[in-house]
Amino acid sequence: MDEIQKELLIQVADLHEVPQGAYNLRVNGQGAGRNTTEHIDIVTKTDKPGIDIIVKPGTKNESIHIPVVLSQSGLTELVYNDFFIGEDSDVTIVAGCGIHNGGSDKSEHDGIHSFFIGKNAKVKYVEKHYGSGDGSGERILNPQTIIHIDEGGYMEMDTVQIKGVDSTIRTTQATLEDKATLVIKEKIMTHGKQYAKTDFEVNLNGEDCGANVISRSVAKEDSHQIFLSKINGNNKCYGHTECDAILMDRGSVSAIPEITANHLEASLIHEAAIGKIAGEEITKLMTLGLTEAEAEAQIVNGFLK
Amino acid sequence: MDEIQKELLIQVADLHEVPQGAYNLRVNGQGAGRNTTEHIDIVTKTDKPGIDIIVKPGTKNESIHIPVVLSQSGLTELVYNDFFIGEDSDVTIVAGCGIHNGGSDKSEHDGIHSFFIGKNAKVKYVEKHYGSGDGSGERILNPQTIIHIDEGGYMEMDTVQIKGVDSTIRTTQATLEDKATLVIKEKIMTHGKQYAKTDFEVNLNGEDCGANVISRSVAKEDSHQIFLSKINGNNKCYGHTECDAILMDRGSVSAIPEITANHLEASLIHEAAIGKIAGEEITKLMTLGLTEAEAEAQIVNGFLK
Repeated sequence: MDEIQKELLIQVADLHEVPQGAYNLRVNGQGAGRNTTEHIDIVTKTDKPGIDIIVKPGTKNESIHIPVVLSQSGLTELVYNDFFIGEDSDVTIVAGCGIHNGGSDKSEHDGIHSFFIGKNAKVKYVEKHYGSGDGSGERILNPQTIIHIDEGGYMEMDTVQIKGVDSTIRTTQATLEDKATLVIKEKIMTHGKQYAKTDFEVNLNGEDCGANVISRSVAKEDSHQIFLSKINGNNKCYGHTECDAILMDRGSVSAIPEITANHLEASLIHEAAIGKIAGEEITKLMTLGLTEAEAEAQIVNGFLK
Repeated sequence: MDEIQKELLIQVADLHEVPQGAYNLRVNGQGAGRNTTEHIDIVTKTDKPGIDIIVKPGTKNESIHIPVVLSQSGLTELVYNDFFIGEDSDVTIVAGCGIHNGGSDKSEHDGIHSFFIGKNAKVKYVEKHYGSGDGSGERILNPQTIIHIDEGGYMEMDTVQIKGVDSTIRTTQATLEDKATLVIKEKIMTHGKQYAKTDFEVNLNGEDCGANVISRSVAKEDSHQIFLSKINGNNKCYGHTECDAILMDRGSVSAIPEITANHLEASLIHEAAIGKIAGEEITKLMTLGLTEAEAEAQIVNGFLK
């Protein structure tokens, strides 16, 4: 790997070297390394591009890294990754994508990730998106995540897109069975003329299942963001969705949540707030010696922490 | 007026006799009485059904009642009422519609109300909808309200639909200029197989304008409600929308707010909560001697107060 590719890997997966445990590294549309373990298999799909990640029942405290790096301008790819998480397992999955586009052609990575989370299994899923390069070509990432959580299963999904992605449409659909839990934490910062759309749909089908969807975003310069979040309560369940957005410059944000209770024992809550940083917060930090720009940066960093 | 018509009038306008001040009474599609005052004119439209209500600038502490009563089964009407509220005036407008349908045909009243609220004028607008009668014919009310509030103007709109309306689609569109304020308080209770849809759109165009949209609803039995509320912040402004819904029996509710900030100094907040009455609230009232049904009724009444 060259220096650009190594930097992308640091940004999207915090990887400074080859990771511990199972991993699959994809660079410019090609496999660039793979490791499997006694409990975790990674198998190349034969019918379409992508891999199957198979975690055996009872696997505990193992991690799977599947970062994707694109540094060749003009490359467009669509990849299908399926995750089969065995019963009673407890694993962390890190899947990020970094695009460096130094050319004039569009670079695009679209990943369709399907999760089949077994009974009482626990998954922490981290997804980071990052773009760099000063070429005029666009950097586009459209991740699609399809989640099915079986009885008693738990998934936490942390997605971060901090920088450099020109256009992203992020679609997540989840279905929860009895006692299943889904926690989604999304952080997005857009700048320039970037466009980011997030579209969550969570179907709370099981008894005593619950979902908590939290989005924090910052829209700088002329960027535009749309946040859609749909929670359907179809059983005795709990659902909460929250969207907080900070506006800067000429940024604009739409928040369109949708909560539907189809069951008497469904309890659903939504909250959203959009606004600029309060003047007094900036003043307070400036009295401590920060410039206005430093104060703003510190508040934004704290907000997205 | 007969006894049924009098009862409808009590329900929609709290009127036990002819009101004080300006009024226009419409019964079964016909004018049934009108009074104008020195400061308030009511003029029948010549191009379409409906009236113009003209409030002279500076009119203070006067009221206008324009109730509509339908007791003839099978009647369908569409009425246009325009309100021209002069600068610096301060008036209360009561506009309700009661339908008694004892027959098998559909009875429908659709009102399109347009408000032109002058500079620094203040309007309290109360609209009650009520249905009665044990005929199999549907009772349908589709009110449409279009509001324009000029600089410094203020409008409070209280709408109530408590009982007996089989189907309603309630559309409200508002545009606010500098320093204008709009407060909307909606209360809806549905039962049986009723359907109620509410659709607010508020455009905060003026500097320092603000809107507060609050909806409280109860969905009983097999009824279904949809709450849409769209607030667009196009200037330095403040917007808040809130939807609280109580579910009972097999009732279902969708809340779909949409807040869009198109200006750095737009501050927008949304909150929604849907759920059934907490068990402990009912238990508490039952220890005070109420039956479960009485406890529920008391909580619902308090919620819709």
